[in-house]
Amino acid sequence: MSTQPSNQHRDDQNIDLETRLTEDHHAALKLWLRMLSCTVMVESEIRNRLRSEFEITLPRFDLMAQLERHPDGLRMGELSKRMMVTGGNVTGITDQLEQEGLVERVIEAKDRRAYSVKLTNAGHKAFARMAQVHEAWVAELFSGLNAEQKNAMVDLLSKLKNSLTTDVS
Amino acid sequence: MSTQPSNQHRDDQNIDLETRLTEDHHAALKLWLRMLSCTVMVESEIRNRLRSEFEITLPRFDLMAQLERHPDGLRMGELSKRMMVTGGNVTGITDQLEQEGLVERVIEAKDRRAYSVKLTNAGHKAFARMAQVHEAWVAELFSGLNAEQKNAMVDLLSKLKNSLTTDVS
Repeated sequence: MSTQPSNQHRDDQNIDLETRLTEDHHAALKLWLRMLSCTVMVESEIRNRLRSEFEITLPRFDLMAQLERHPDGLRMGELSKRMMVTGGNVTGITDQLEQEGLVERVIEAKDRRAYSVKLTNAGHKAFARMAQVHEAWVAELFSGLNAEQKNAMVDLLSKLKNSLTTDVS
Repeated sequence: MSTQPSNQHRDDQNIDLETRLTEDHHAALKLWLRMLSCTVMVESEIRNRLRSEFEITLPRFDLMAQLERHPDGLRMGELSKRMMVTGGNVTGITDQLEQEGLVERVIEAKDRRAYSVKLTNAGHKAFARMAQVHEAWVAELFSGLNAEQKNAMVDLLSKLKNSLTTDVS
């Protein structure tokens, strides 16, 4: 055991640092697990309701939502990157939706080997109907938070998202 | 157009109500999409790091994490219910981990047709090593939020989770 006060002091500092590090790690892990479990709960509820109400899978709804946000169409690679949920085969879903007349593949004027995927008019209509109901479900599922709490959480998530976009990849 | 002040007043009230409803729906949808996109970003980063650092899939890590939290073991049904991530075949993962000596199936004394899954000693050790690194990654990924902001977010998510547990299912 050291009798030098300076070393003792350094040991204390190290212990403080470690304690703070451990506390910070635990707080981050707690936050992540809570966020993951809330996301899973909301996602699976929406997945079930989409299936029973509209007989549509979540990846299919997600794909149509991405196309709705990009009226000029998206190439397959862009579409894959923008999908929010995993587990869907983008090409397979696009094929199905095309057969049902809800999306179309459009050859690009500039590069005739490339094509974009767009919603058809029927696709826009079908999506608009589902999106309205979907938005009401989301409002219901988040009704445990009041307007102020929702805003606070959007701010915190925006901060997190910015730091993730900067640090990761 | 109505000339009656009372009707005019009621119309205004309806418009106010609709505006507030629309605003509330949009706020909830914005919050949900931000939460989903943050979760997807963190999850896919962790998925990639687990694969490159430990050659382990996220569902496999998740399954071991659930067993770590339940030292008395879990039945297959309980284990499936507790898994936080989708896309894993619980029976298949358990078979693999058993072959590698990381988990074991234990026949229950009370009901000899039923069995529980537990981590073996080797499983505990392997998981502990990964869990420490995993926790440091999570701390790094959430370092964009300070301690106070992390706590605020845990509180908001707890509130959300309670309301989801009460309302849903």
